[in-house]
Amino acid sequence: MIGVFDSGVGGLTVLKALLRELPAERFVYLGDTARLPYGTKSAETVGRYALQAAEALAGYGLKCLVMACNTASAVALPAVRAQLSTLPVIGVIEPGAEAAAAASPSGRIAVLATEGTVRGGAYQQAILRRRPDAQVYALPAPLFVALAEEGLSDGPIAEAVAHHYLDALFAAAGAGAPDTLVLGCTHFPMVAAAIRAAVGPAVRIVDSAETTARHVRAALCQAGLAQAGGQGGLRLLATDAPERFARIGARFLERPIGEREVELIDL
Amino acid sequence: MIGVFDSGVGGLTVLKALLRELPAERFVYLGDTARLPYGTKSAETVGRYALQAAEALAGYGLKCLVMACNTASAVALPAVRAQLSTLPVIGVIEPGAEAAAAASPSGRIAVLATEGTVRGGAYQQAILRRRPDAQVYALPAPLFVALAEEGLSDGPIAEAVAHHYLDALFAAAGAGAPDTLVLGCTHFPMVAAAIRAAVGPAVRIVDSAETTARHVRAALCQAGLAQAGGQGGLRLLATDAPERFARIGARFLERPIGEREVELIDL
Repeated sequence: MIGVFDSGVGGLTVLKALLRELPAERFVYLGDTARLPYGTKSAETVGRYALQAAEALAGYGLKCLVMACNTASAVALPAVRAQLSTLPVIGVIEPGAEAAAAASPSGRIAVLATEGTVRGGAYQQAILRRRPDAQVYALPAPLFVALAEEGLSDGPIAEAVAHHYLDALFAAAGAGAPDTLVLGCTHFPMVAAAIRAAVGPAVRIVDSAETTARHVRAALCQAGLAQAGGQGGLRLLATDAPERFARIGARFLERPIGEREVELIDL
Repeated sequence: MIGVFDSGVGGLTVLKALLRELPAERFVYLGDTARLPYGTKSAETVGRYALQAAEALAGYGLKCLVMACNTASAVALPAVRAQLSTLPVIGVIEPGAEAAAAASPSGRIAVLATEGTVRGGAYQQAILRRRPDAQVYALPAPLFVALAEEGLSDGPIAEAVAHHYLDALFAAAGAGAPDTLVLGCTHFPMVAAAIRAAVGPAVRIVDSAETTARHVRAALCQAGLAQAGGQGGLRLLATDAPERFARIGARFLERPIGEREVELIDL
């Protein structure tokens, strides 16, 4: 069983990529919907919540834990690794940073994320560790979260919001603009088309959901833990409002979710 | 001391109206920023949080408690009243419903609110109790919360979102459109100009922050509890991220808030 943890439904974009990458594996996904969003909370609070969630997921008998939440990955990965010392624990920041550092010709890399992720500086540091010459621009873009949850992922409002966040850096900077943009929040792959419309066709967009899924597959193969065959499987857990989780989550997972498919748990 | 409770910074629009209406009173405001938003959480969870917050505020020696949070008012007012049986506890739903029922010539009344408030049906019921002939249309408009918090309260994005939420009911309905619109979320007075631009000049907009403040003053006068003179005062409490509370809250309160002015408390 592979555990996937997020503050809510956003991590379902990571789960979707994992299901595609590892179709024979069994997954248990936990969305901490009672306490979302993590992006505006302090590092201490997010760290405490992430440890509780990791503990709960460990009870399902995991061989690997994926912290699909960018904010939790940014502030709580070392603490969760220390707590679950026998398991590989994989966050979304390092795979995204690695892909961005490799993809960018100029080293000018923009990271779109939540306020908490930007403030914590984890993407900036992870990119600079791999590529000390990089110039990293981290932009908080919290409205995209609300747009994605409301099903307004594309269309004129999403594009206007994308221009609002990105034009100063991409359109105004001209030749000095970033050539690579990291979607540093699990919600943002949902609004990728609007972001693409704002930054134009030449910018490389790094989807940290996809890069994380490839990273998980590589880690499992390397450790000899990958499932050779089988049908796979999925359990969905939420800490509150399973009806909303099913309704909004279906858009993120791109398949219907029955309300009774979502199990309510307490942390 | 008058206690004011909200899930976050939104209730500062109610506090602002209270400070204007009752300048001689002392206020203590609690924003449960660690656990916001309430609007997407289940009624059970919101009820539990509201009781904890009311208990904490009661410890400050209150003569009155204002539940500035629409979602908490909708689902937890009876429970909080039962818990604080010696205090007047005033929510934001009843004053808003009363004002709307009185303001509407046709009885066609729209309520803009969060998902939780709409689903709970409290505005609908409160309006129909006063005016059984009314036709109440409740619309969830969660994006306005994100826009107000991000400082995008007016301008083209806010107006596009207002049209997105309101055109089907107001522009398309023609002569059968509502004549009155209740701002049924504490964040929405911040985007009132964009809402006004979408619905046109003829629609009566009921701001539940202002109607609640007038209601509190009336209740205090009637109970002989109003402060006759004095300078007033304000304490601000938050359960997480006081820096963000100060930064975003200043826009809602329309005055600077020092970060050290916000006290961090645990519930």
